[in-house]
Amino acid sequence: MTKTAAIIGGGVIGGGWLARFLLNGWDVNLFDPDPEAKRKINAVLGNARRSLPMLYDVALPDEGKLTICDTVEAAVKTADWVQESVPERLDIKHKVFAQIEAFAPHDAVIGSSTSGFKPSELQEGMKRPDAVMVTHPFNPVYLLPLIEVVPSPKTSADMVTKAKAILTSLGMYPLHVRKEIDAHIADRFLEAVWREGLWLIKDGIATTQEIDDAIRYGFGLRWAQMGLFETYRIAGGEAGMKHFIAQFGPCLKWPWTKLMDVPELTPELTDMIADQSDTQSGDLSIRELERLRDDNLVAMMRALKGQDSAAGALINAHQAQIAPKMTPDFTKPIQSADRMIPVDWTDYNGHMNESRYAEAFSEAVDFVMGSVGADAAYIASGFSYFTVDLSCRYLAEAHAGQRITIESQIILGEGKKLKVHHRMLSQDGVLLATGDHFMLHVSLKTRRTCDPEPEVMKRIEIAAKAHAALPDPRGERG
Amino acid sequence: MTKTAAIIGGGVIGGGWLARFLLNGWDVNLFDPDPEAKRKINAVLGNARRSLPMLYDVALPDEGKLTICDTVEAAVKTADWVQESVPERLDIKHKVFAQIEAFAPHDAVIGSSTSGFKPSELQEGMKRPDAVMVTHPFNPVYLLPLIEVVPSPKTSADMVTKAKAILTSLGMYPLHVRKEIDAHIADRFLEAVWREGLWLIKDGIATTQEIDDAIRYGFGLRWAQMGLFETYRIAGGEAGMKHFIAQFGPCLKWPWTKLMDVPELTPELTDMIADQSDTQSGDLSIRELERLRDDNLVAMMRALKGQDSAAGALINAHQAQIAPKMTPDFTKPIQSADRMIPVDWTDYNGHMNESRYAEAFSEAVDFVMGSVGADAAYIASGFSYFTVDLSCRYLAEAHAGQRITIESQIILGEGKKLKVHHRMLSQDGVLLATGDHFMLHVSLKTRRTCDPEPEVMKRIEIAAKAHAALPDPRGERG
Repeated sequence: MTKTAAIIGGGVIGGGWLARFLLNGWDVNLFDPDPEAKRKINAVLGNARRSLPMLYDVALPDEGKLTICDTVEAAVKTADWVQESVPERLDIKHKVFAQIEAFAPHDAVIGSSTSGFKPSELQEGMKRPDAVMVTHPFNPVYLLPLIEVVPSPKTSADMVTKAKAILTSLGMYPLHVRKEIDAHIADRFLEAVWREGLWLIKDGIATTQEIDDAIRYGFGLRWAQMGLFETYRIAGGEAGMKHFIAQFGPCLKWPWTKLMDVPELTPELTDMIADQSDTQSGDLSIRELERLRDDNLVAMMRALKGQDSAAGALINAHQAQIAPKMTPDFTKPIQSADRMIPVDWTDYNGHMNESRYAEAFSEAVDFVMGSVGADAAYIASGFSYFTVDLSCRYLAEAHAGQRITIESQIILGEGKKLKVHHRMLSQDGVLLATGDHFMLHVSLKTRRTCDPEPEVMKRIEIAAKAHAALPDPRGERG
Repeated sequence: MTKTAAIIGGGVIGGGWLARFLLNGWDVNLFDPDPEAKRKINAVLGNARRSLPMLYDVALPDEGKLTICDTVEAAVKTADWVQESVPERLDIKHKVFAQIEAFAPHDAVIGSSTSGFKPSELQEGMKRPDAVMVTHPFNPVYLLPLIEVVPSPKTSADMVTKAKAILTSLGMYPLHVRKEIDAHIADRFLEAVWREGLWLIKDGIATTQEIDDAIRYGFGLRWAQMGLFETYRIAGGEAGMKHFIAQFGPCLKWPWTKLMDVPELTPELTDMIADQSDTQSGDLSIRELERLRDDNLVAMMRALKGQDSAAGALINAHQAQIAPKMTPDFTKPIQSADRMIPVDWTDYNGHMNESRYAEAFSEAVDFVMGSVGADAAYIASGFSYFTVDLSCRYLAEAHAGQRITIESQIILGEGKKLKVHHRMLSQDGVLLATGDHFMLHVSLKTRRTCDPEPEVMKRIEIAAKAHAALPDPRGERG
């Protein structure tokens, strides 16, 4: 049966929760007295509808039904989950919780999005505090999986179990915070960094931009896939976590941050950290952890490269510097690629996925286009080639880390038609695959076919004529 | 002409620098008195050779020549860049710098990898401190682009300019730290987080694993692509950075971290932050920033999904829960895909890249295989299908955010041969593309073709027979 979530407070955080439930097939009741609530919710929901389904290779469940309610009572009375995301003032939260407990079903989970309050503070004065816990999300709530689930001693253990199961069913990760504390876990780190950041700006050391660059080009990438301790375990190398702590322990006394209230690094604390790290990561050797880290970094940095953003924009700029110059020599096939197969191109068969051969041929044909003048500037001027047909024939397996080259030969270049044959070779000359492109020249304005501009047409004809004099490479296809 | 880098100290950091130079075509001279140096360097170099070239879609320059030297003199005397990465003790560093300045060419950049010392401390007692600066990298140095370039007042501005140009040519990002300070910028944040982390472990709030999960499933993903301030600018929403600061300003007085040495949040400091944030991000609206953030997050999380690691492993687990069950009904074509086109599938033409149609067909054929029993368990048992030939015909453009379905029909299923025809449809029934797979059954042990196992063979024959009774879908191809 369809379940119902009640969202109390529909700002950026409440809206994110609303989207997460709705897009996972839950019905949602919203209560928010703000007259702008509907507009704000629609903005968040628009972002979520656009991005959350993109994470998956299958469709999400059909969206649930969204109902905007005039009262807390109407919103919560049929709810399986009530999520409070009102402003961070304890008096306001207490008022809202009194209403929620008056009308919500007794088996509904009651979660609070509070960044800082402890669940026992929220429960003050409640008649049935057992269903109440902190369920603290991270913006954008519709994409980031982390939810800190923080019960107090008064919260029922069964309710915590139920809440965790529901969060998992929404694609989220419930991190059970076993001991309540101000600001839970993650926000304590964010607050520490925020405080140090304020000092750096105040003291004129760095601007907001410089601080952000210091984060996103360095440790931010590490932290997106491993956290602090697994990263440092690797840094300790073969000598291990204790070695790392011994190495950086003395810094605790140094002014490496303005935040000098430090714990004493006793042998007991060192042992505790080393033991926990062994439990966390001990099944992998340092070499295996390095490889995991590097594979994750390569895949994420390539993803950012595709978006031409953050560290990915740096790689694109560097690539433009080292890319081979296009010096059209049509007395032989065009060397249209020379590259290494990256880790994100392999599949469950342990070899390069068939679609990545197509990707390599697609990039190769871009190079061919560039060599006849249909380059980035030409495309920016409103013309391009669209592929009508691409065939790949697979002759041998290829693997991540292997270097490949592609030779491309123009088979036909007449009017709007362009046919190119590709041969993909391993470094020792083994033919791995062939590809055949049939493309048509288009106007990017009309999205219809048209003849190339005269300069490009002329160069294609020269190239096609020269390549026609070469042996037909398709002989090997048979 | 080939340039030469001298690497003084070949641990994890020195080895990372060595790899970065060598793989970018520089000759490298290494000095390290550790008898294990060669083995350690080879381990780092192995990781780097495997991963750095994967970031690019073109080949890196040919590797330079690595020479292991017996003295600092031999290492630095022909160097264009000298990089010091010896242990973090000022007395050791001073000894090494005395040798470097005695023998290095006067126009060589002299960089130190120190995490914490200020360049003026390194320069103490030097005759020509003008070439010396901190160039602080982040592990793994061969992948992460950030280098903090920290000059002292004694460092020559020309040398800083030269150093930044060289670092950029190596694909790195020189962050010019304008005012020297202990631990520069990034490590001050790392130290703050480390100190807070020690408290959480000491107080029994969280384990190393829980802390790492709190980071990598939440703000770590944000920080890999935007930093602290641009993220908070978005959180402030339409009301802007000042609103955000007003909202979270009071927390500075609260025990949200144990690190309580906070600056006062004066109106001047608030203005300074808001102005810097405008300069940094003011050319984009909040809506545009949200979209940039979400696109980056989707692309990175999909990259981790491909590695089945960190947040990507959570998505795969959730996807397995919501994926359609395979209930073989061969009285009609198999609905082999129903999904949204993600943002990482589009290209410079603004539409789905031709290779991603192939990717969608590749996943569709996996579903077809699963529906006849050649599923993940079958593949784990040592059998699979390899594609011999894949043809895609492109009939209409498709865009990110568009929902697509694929209908697959078995054309031939005899012995080791399997032919499948795919039709990709938009949500309103427009035929976007067709695909034709020709596959052969293989043993994953021998990597050679063989007949399917009897149970799979039987199901293929049933399916092929049923599909043979349907109209031939390839009629539409012509």
